[in-house]
Amino acid sequence: MSYRSAGVDIDAADSVVAGIRGLAARTHTDRVPTGLGHFGGFYRIGPAGPGATLVASIDGVGTKLKVATLAGHHAGIGADIVNHCINDIAACGATPLFFLDYFGTGKLNPEIAVSVIGGIAAACESAGVALIGGETAEMPGVYTGDDYDLVGTIVGIVDAESVVDGSDITAGHVLVGIPSSGFHTNGYSLIRAALGLNESDATRERLAAPAPFEPSRSLAEVLLEPHRSYLPVVRQLQAEAQVSGMAHITGGGLPGNVSRIIPEGLVARIDTRTWQVPAPFSFVAEAGNVSDSECYRAFNMGIGYVVVCAPEDVPVVTRIATDAVVIGEIQPADDERRVVLIQDGTELQ
Amino acid sequence: MSYRSAGVDIDAADSVVAGIRGLAARTHTDRVPTGLGHFGGFYRIGPAGPGATLVASIDGVGTKLKVATLAGHHAGIGADIVNHCINDIAACGATPLFFLDYFGTGKLNPEIAVSVIGGIAAACESAGVALIGGETAEMPGVYTGDDYDLVGTIVGIVDAESVVDGSDITAGHVLVGIPSSGFHTNGYSLIRAALGLNESDATRERLAAPAPFEPSRSLAEVLLEPHRSYLPVVRQLQAEAQVSGMAHITGGGLPGNVSRIIPEGLVARIDTRTWQVPAPFSFVAEAGNVSDSECYRAFNMGIGYVVVCAPEDVPVVTRIATDAVVIGEIQPADDERRVVLIQDGTELQ
Repeated sequence: MSYRSAGVDIDAADSVVAGIRGLAARTHTDRVPTGLGHFGGFYRIGPAGPGATLVASIDGVGTKLKVATLAGHHAGIGADIVNHCINDIAACGATPLFFLDYFGTGKLNPEIAVSVIGGIAAACESAGVALIGGETAEMPGVYTGDDYDLVGTIVGIVDAESVVDGSDITAGHVLVGIPSSGFHTNGYSLIRAALGLNESDATRERLAAPAPFEPSRSLAEVLLEPHRSYLPVVRQLQAEAQVSGMAHITGGGLPGNVSRIIPEGLVARIDTRTWQVPAPFSFVAEAGNVSDSECYRAFNMGIGYVVVCAPEDVPVVTRIATDAVVIGEIQPADDERRVVLIQDGTELQ
Repeated sequence: MSYRSAGVDIDAADSVVAGIRGLAARTHTDRVPTGLGHFGGFYRIGPAGPGATLVASIDGVGTKLKVATLAGHHAGIGADIVNHCINDIAACGATPLFFLDYFGTGKLNPEIAVSVIGGIAAACESAGVALIGGETAEMPGVYTGDDYDLVGTIVGIVDAESVVDGSDITAGHVLVGIPSSGFHTNGYSLIRAALGLNESDATRERLAAPAPFEPSRSLAEVLLEPHRSYLPVVRQLQAEAQVSGMAHITGGGLPGNVSRIIPEGLVARIDTRTWQVPAPFSFVAEAGNVSDSECYRAFNMGIGYVVVCAPEDVPVVTRIATDAVVIGEIQPADDERRVVLIQDGTELQ
C-alpha cells in the first residue's frame, strides 16, 4: 500500500506548487526576503512606530465554489477570495501587506488548482499585496468529486491613530453606499436553492445559456462575477476625506454588517429607494419567492461597501467613489437595533 | 424560501460565535485593543526595529478530522491545528503573535464547532498566542454529514538577524531529533486506508477498543493524540544555544522537510537506527503492508522536530530538549539529494 493508493498524490501537489511559485514571485517586492517553500512566509515590515497595529482577517468564498464547479469556470474565484479579504481590513483603515491561501480538495486536479491559485496571485499583484504562503491539501473522503474549499488570510497594518472602527460616528452623519459588482461571495446556498441549481446536465446548460435578464452574459458569468475590490477607493478616501466608519457588506447583508460599526445609542436608517436593486437580485428573489427581509439579510442587494461621514464630506466622497449614493443617515436610537431598513416608507422587519 | 431552508442557519452561526467569544477573550492581552466582531482582528505590535519581519503560515489538519469525526472526539483537534502552525514558524526563529481559524462544514453542529474552536482557544492561551479572528462557514453540498475542514493561520515576528533558515548549516554539523507525540497531523489518509477505517459501526467499535499495541489507550486516543508544541523548547534553544537550522517534520516526513533547510552542496545523512520507531507507526505499516520508504515520506516516524547545530553544541541542546537524540550529520553532497536516510547500513530509496 502507498500514500498514492490511499488517495494522496504528493507529486501532483508538488507540480501545483511548482506552477504557483512563479506566479507568486511576481507579487514579491524587496519586503519579501525569501521565496516560498520555507516553513513560514516572510514579510519585512521594517521600522514601525509605537502605534503600529496589524489587522488580519480569514475568510472563504462559500458555495460560490459550487457554482464555479458546476459551470467549470474557476478563474474569477481567486479575485473573489483576495478582494473579499482586502475589503474587510480596508474597512478598518488598514493597508494590506500579504496574503496566504488554503486549497482543500478530495482529489487534487492540478488544472483547477492552478487556475484558482493563479487568480489569487493575479488579484494580489493587482492590489500590491504579497502572496507569501499557501497550503494545498488533498483530503479523500472529506470532499467529493471536483469539490474544493478555498480559504484566505490577509494581514495588513495601520497606525493606531488611523484605525477606522466607527467610534467617531455621530447622529447626523450619513451613509454613502458604493455599488457591488454582483453577489460578491455571499448567499450562494440560497441562490442555488432558489434557482434549483444541482449536479444535473440541465443545470449546466442553464448556466451556460444567456441570463434571462441580461442576454449579453451567461447566467454563470453573472453569478460568478468576481467580488469587487474597494481598495483603490478606500486609499483615496483615507488621503482626501474624513470618514467616520466603513462597512464591507458580506454575510448578513446591510443590517448584519453596518451594525458592526454603529456605536451604542445610534441607529443607521437606510432607505432602500435610494438605489436600484440590480436585476440579478430581483431575479433570484422572484425565482425562489424569497422575502425582502430575507434577501437583505442574505445578499448585498447592490451595495457592497458603506462609508459613513458628515454631510459636508459627501461631495468629496462621491467625487472619489463616483458611483456612490447617499443611502441613509445616522439617528439617535429608539431601541436595541443598530440598523433599520426603510422599504417604501415602512420599516422592513 | 429562506436562507435557513436553503441549509444556512445564521442564528446557529451566531450562537457559535457567542460561545467562542469568551474563550477567545482569554487569549487577549493589551496588545489586542478590540475584541472579535470587527471586520479584521487587531494586534498592536508597537515599536519595531528596522529588521522587523513578520512570519506567517496557513495550514489544515488533513484527514485526522475524519478520524475525529468517526470517533466523535474533537477536543484535541484545536491543539493540532494551533501547534502545527506554531511549530512551522518557530522553525524560522519567529515568536508567534496571533492566530485565526476557519471552520467549514455542511451543516453547522454547534457542539462540535465549539468543542473544536474551544480547543483552539485553549492551545492559543497555553502558548501565549492571541486568537484574533475566525470564520465559521456553513456550506451545504460541499461537505457531507458531520464532516468539516479546519484551517489555521499563524502570524509571528522575528528580527532579521535572528531568522533561522538553515543558511548557517555547514558540513560537520549534526542533526538532533526531538520525538513527536504521535502521528501529529500527517498521513491520516494512509492510516485510514491501512487500517481499513470507514463509516461502519465496526470501525467505530475498533476505534473505541484498546489499541492492540498499547492496551491502556483506545485506538482512537492513540490516533488522535494532539500535535506536540515545540515552542517551549525552541524558545529556550534560542536563548541558550547556537542553532544553525530547524525543521518541523510534517507532510513529506524527514526527507521532505529536512531538505527545506539544507544548503546546496550539502546532504543530511540520517541513520534510522538512532531512535526507536514508536509502536503506532509499525502497527500501521504492518497493517497496510506499507514500505519503509513510503512510511518515512508519509509519517514523522517518531521524530517531530529536527535541530541542526555544531557537534560542540549538542550537550546544551539535549539538556534543553531532554528527550532528543543525535540522528545524523551534515556532509558534502554527492548528488542532488539534500537528505539521505540510512536504514540498517544501506541507503533507503
